Amino acid sequence: MDLSLYLVTDRPLSRGRPIDEIVSAAIAGGVTTIQLREKDASTAEFLDLALRVRSITRESGVTFIVNDRLDIALASDADGIHVGQDDMPADLARRLIGPGKILGVTAADAEQVEAAVAAGADYIGCNAVFATPTKTDTGIPQGIAGLAGLVRTSPVPVVAIGGINAANAAEVLSTGVAGIAVVSAIIAADDPEMAARELKQITDR
Amino acid sequence: MDLSLYLVTDRPLSRGRPIDEIVSAAIAGGVTTIQLREKDASTAEFLDLALRVRSITRESGVTFIVNDRLDIALASDADGIHVGQDDMPADLARRLIGPGKILGVTAADAEQVEAAVAAGADYIGCNAVFATPTKTDTGIPQGIAGLAGLVRTSPVPVVAIGGINAANAAEVLSTGVAGIAVVSAIIAADDPEMAARELKQITDR
Repeated sequence: MDLSLYLVTDRPLSRGRPIDEIVSAAIAGGVTTIQLREKDASTAEFLDLALRVRSITRESGVTFIVNDRLDIALASDADGIHVGQDDMPADLARRLIGPGKILGVTAADAEQVEAAVAAGADYIGCNAVFATPTKTDTGIPQGIAGLAGLVRTSPVPVVAIGGINAANAAEVLSTGVAGIAVVSAIIAADDPEMAARELKQITDR
Repeated sequence: MDLSLYLVTDRPLSRGRPIDEIVSAAIAGGVTTIQLREKDASTAEFLDLALRVRSITRESGVTFIVNDRLDIALASDADGIHVGQDDMPADLARRLIGPGKILGVTAADAEQVEAAVAAGADYIGCNAVFATPTKTDTGIPQGIAGLAGLVRTSPVPVVAIGGINAANAAEVLSTGVAGIAVVSAIIAADDPEMAARELKQITDR
């Protein structure tokens, strides 16, 4: 599990381009984890896309996480699932997905981090500080200092999400997070591969 | 599994009344199977409702089926899942839900019935003939003669759905179906318990 450059997909931000093509370009640019998120697709559509992304990520050795939908994660043999506060409770998700899969949980403060870890979370998603065009369902922004505090107290890796781009990625990484999660910075980019590569140069430093 | 009077829930048709209250009333009126269908709820909301309906149906000995969402079916320990053409493929649903659970599959013709049974369907949902205010995702109406033909060829029980109410239920039952599935006839009724009781008198005959 390499969470260092973590892409969360978002169809409305994809400018009509197929998600699996953006995923392929992002992986070519250096993305290390893909989280597939579909809030409006039918189960058949979501599963079809998940199977394609599973194939792409398996070929490239990239970690594949499904957002929210445990049925899609199981059916596509994803590496794991990410749950937020509107999703299935983390302990139930852990029980149903089994011990061998990755469980990511969104947490907004130290108490939620503790609960997520107790439920079996392998990593935590935390809101960063920046304004974002994407509804990330990650609670209140932490700020850089707040994020650094959560990273210090969390016994599992923390991934920051929320308005992260090439201009602020280094500052976010300075908090000690295991990785940065981006949505629009890659999904909405004119050239997703180049956008990923630019971020990759920052995470590699 | 008693499919004779099969209620499919529908929040937009419920006139603002809580689904679990309508379910309780319908069970008091004689409904034998509940299929919980939520197309717009978050996973947390859907699961919360499913757990309440699981509790109600367990107490009353009524079969509890979840529409489409295998994650909700697993997490709420439902008796089974019902999948349509926009949902997970039936064979995959069967594999993930396990052999001990009920699998219902929507089919529109003899070929789809055969495929569904091969995939492990325990029963088939078929569109009846009548105009319906509900999007039931059940393909083209069969007509009474078409429905009777499917019932004759199907090796598993067939439940008819689509515009069925107290006025036409007897005609639908004359095709040899194992049961009638209703949505608006109970969900949208002024008195769901009485509406269920009226239908129950017809299915009991």
